[in-house]
Amino acid sequence: MTLIDEPHAFDDLARDVPDDLNPFQAFGELLRQQPQVTIVKLAGLARGGGAEFVAAADMAFAAEGHAGLAQCEALMGITPGGGATPYLSRRMTRGRALEVILGSELIDATTAERYGWINRALPAAEFDGFVDRLARNIAALPEGVIAAAKKAVPLADLGDGYRREHDAWASLFQRPAAEKLIRGGLKAGAQTRDGERNLEGLLRALEI
Amino acid sequence: MTLIDEPHAFDDLARDVPDDLNPFQAFGELLRQQPQVTIVKLAGLARGGGAEFVAAADMAFAAEGHAGLAQCEALMGITPGGGATPYLSRRMTRGRALEVILGSELIDATTAERYGWINRALPAAEFDGFVDRLARNIAALPEGVIAAAKKAVPLADLGDGYRREHDAWASLFQRPAAEKLIRGGLKAGAQTRDGERNLEGLLRALEI
Amino acid sequence: MTLIDEPHAFDDLARDVPDDLNPFQAFGELLRQQPQVTIVKLAGLARGGGAEFVAAADMAFAAEGHAGLAQCEALMGITPGGGATPYLSRRMTRGRALEVILGSELIDATTAERYGWINRALPAAEFDGFVDRLARNIAALPEGVIAAAKKAVPLADLGDGYRREHDAWASLFQRPAAEKLIRGGLKAGAQTRDGERNLEGLLRALEI
Repeated sequence: MTLIDEPHAFDDLARDVPDDLNPFQAFGELLRQQPQVTIVKLAGLARGGGAEFVAAADMAFAAEGHAGLAQCEALMGITPGGGATPYLSRRMTRGRALEVILGSELIDATTAERYGWINRALPAAEFDGFVDRLARNIAALPEGVIAAAKKAVPLADLGDGYRREHDAWASLFQRPAAEKLIRGGLKAGAQTRDGERNLEGLLRALEI
Repeated sequence: MTLIDEPHAFDDLARDVPDDLNPFQAFGELLRQQPQVTIVKLAGLARGGGAEFVAAADMAFAAEGHAGLAQCEALMGITPGGGATPYLSRRMTRGRALEVILGSELIDATTAERYGWINRALPAAEFDGFVDRLARNIAALPEGVIAAAKKAVPLADLGDGYRREHDAWASLFQRPAAEKLIRGGLKAGAQTRDGERNLEGLLRALEI
Repeated sequence: MTLIDEPHAFDDLARDVPDDLNPFQAFGELLRQQPQVTIVKLAGLARGGGAEFVAAADMAFAAEGHAGLAQCEALMGITPGGGATPYLSRRMTRGRALEVILGSELIDATTAERYGWINRALPAAEFDGFVDRLARNIAALPEGVIAAAKKAVPLADLGDGYRREHDAWASLFQRPAAEKLIRGGLKAGAQTRDGERNLEGLLRALEI
């Protein structure tokens, strides 16, 4: 099932989400609003909605040499629609957010750390140990500390960002170029294991 | 003297501080508001209020292999109460601020630089020379330049952040867990030279 | 021609610029507001207005070992007047912006990247290839994607920052120290090829 084939696929979901959010943004917001501390361990590739999931979590750690992040929606003729633009705008300079979105390259763990996209890139050998220790340490804190820290370091209100993002996405999604690229990408192997190995290359090779 | 034993120890100080600030925040604000350029040279460990002092200064430089920063209040059952949460929130992503506060690990100079907590980590051999030269260069500037630069790159108003921080801190400080951990920590060697070498380890070993 | 000798040199230009901007800021704003994606490739030294041009572009990449950036106006008795203070304030912590402006040193590509001043520092051997590929990839995107991304990741409104910056600059520019340093700098070789090799050293050697 794709949104291209079934444009009303998410209508049911959309009925339950807060005003002014699309279902993808609402999913991210649901994760952002969890009272727990949410930590992403990334040792593979996360693109599009997957990368938005990473950025919606409280913290994210990535394994050097294994992890990669991309918002490569531009190669499908659209801009990100599930929170990436406000998430990236809070984490990195505008120049880097534009580079990520318009350059549409896979960003390695080290660069993602330098850009502020994730907390840290860690050598693969230390990766599991570091994140497990962090999670156990946080879980061992006295009751109330997590909630208090989350109040003291509050979530930004991304309402305006979500609206701008959705308008930008929606203005492109209905264009013929987007449909052609998304269908073409799926036909060429996007969302298959092999196709996702080098999704950017696959999409750049398509004719508009 | 500790705040645990003498809850009114700071009442006199508190009378002189601006509205809505606690005495610890007021101390940081006093440093922030200095007309001079304030520069921290950190070649040792600064935790809690010490780390808040570092972040309240205009600039901070740290010696690699020697310096460490921590907001490890969570290990005492509380969250930072003297400015750390708005200071960190202006310097690093929310995910990193939460990691620092809830992970409660000692952060080395290099990581502190990458997170934006300090200006730079410098090799120990270059540390004194670099900071001394910077300070002398700034001191040699024509009259009026420092004041103009501070006006052009103004301090953020942290009022809301201070209030949120104090409320979070105060909601925890009165709980039995905090009293137990703070008393237990002091008994186990916190605030002694040896105890401070590995304060995080000492505090994690306490029973709540 | 210098502004010192001809204080009205920019009056004609100033008549055409938006309210509350000086001509230098208006020039930067003109670049910022371009609908295209503007990318700076920096393989040399950019100081003062040159560095402001770099920061007004959407993205900037610098060649390691070749590129340097400076806002060294303080050595001429003034603060930056063409956008640097709001540009830097959006890209790096206040402590780093003050260090750049008051320390007035040439900042190398790697440090500029760590501070967020530019997107990336790249090894000289990869520099041309990386930026050319990025530019070609962006140019190949379907129509509408660039405009949508620029809407989704909007420019910050720097109005207040520009006003504060201009007031700070103007309060210093009329002082005798500034005139003496600017004239002295020009006489000592500023704005000649040799003088610009080590402009900071040249200016620091002047007597006020």
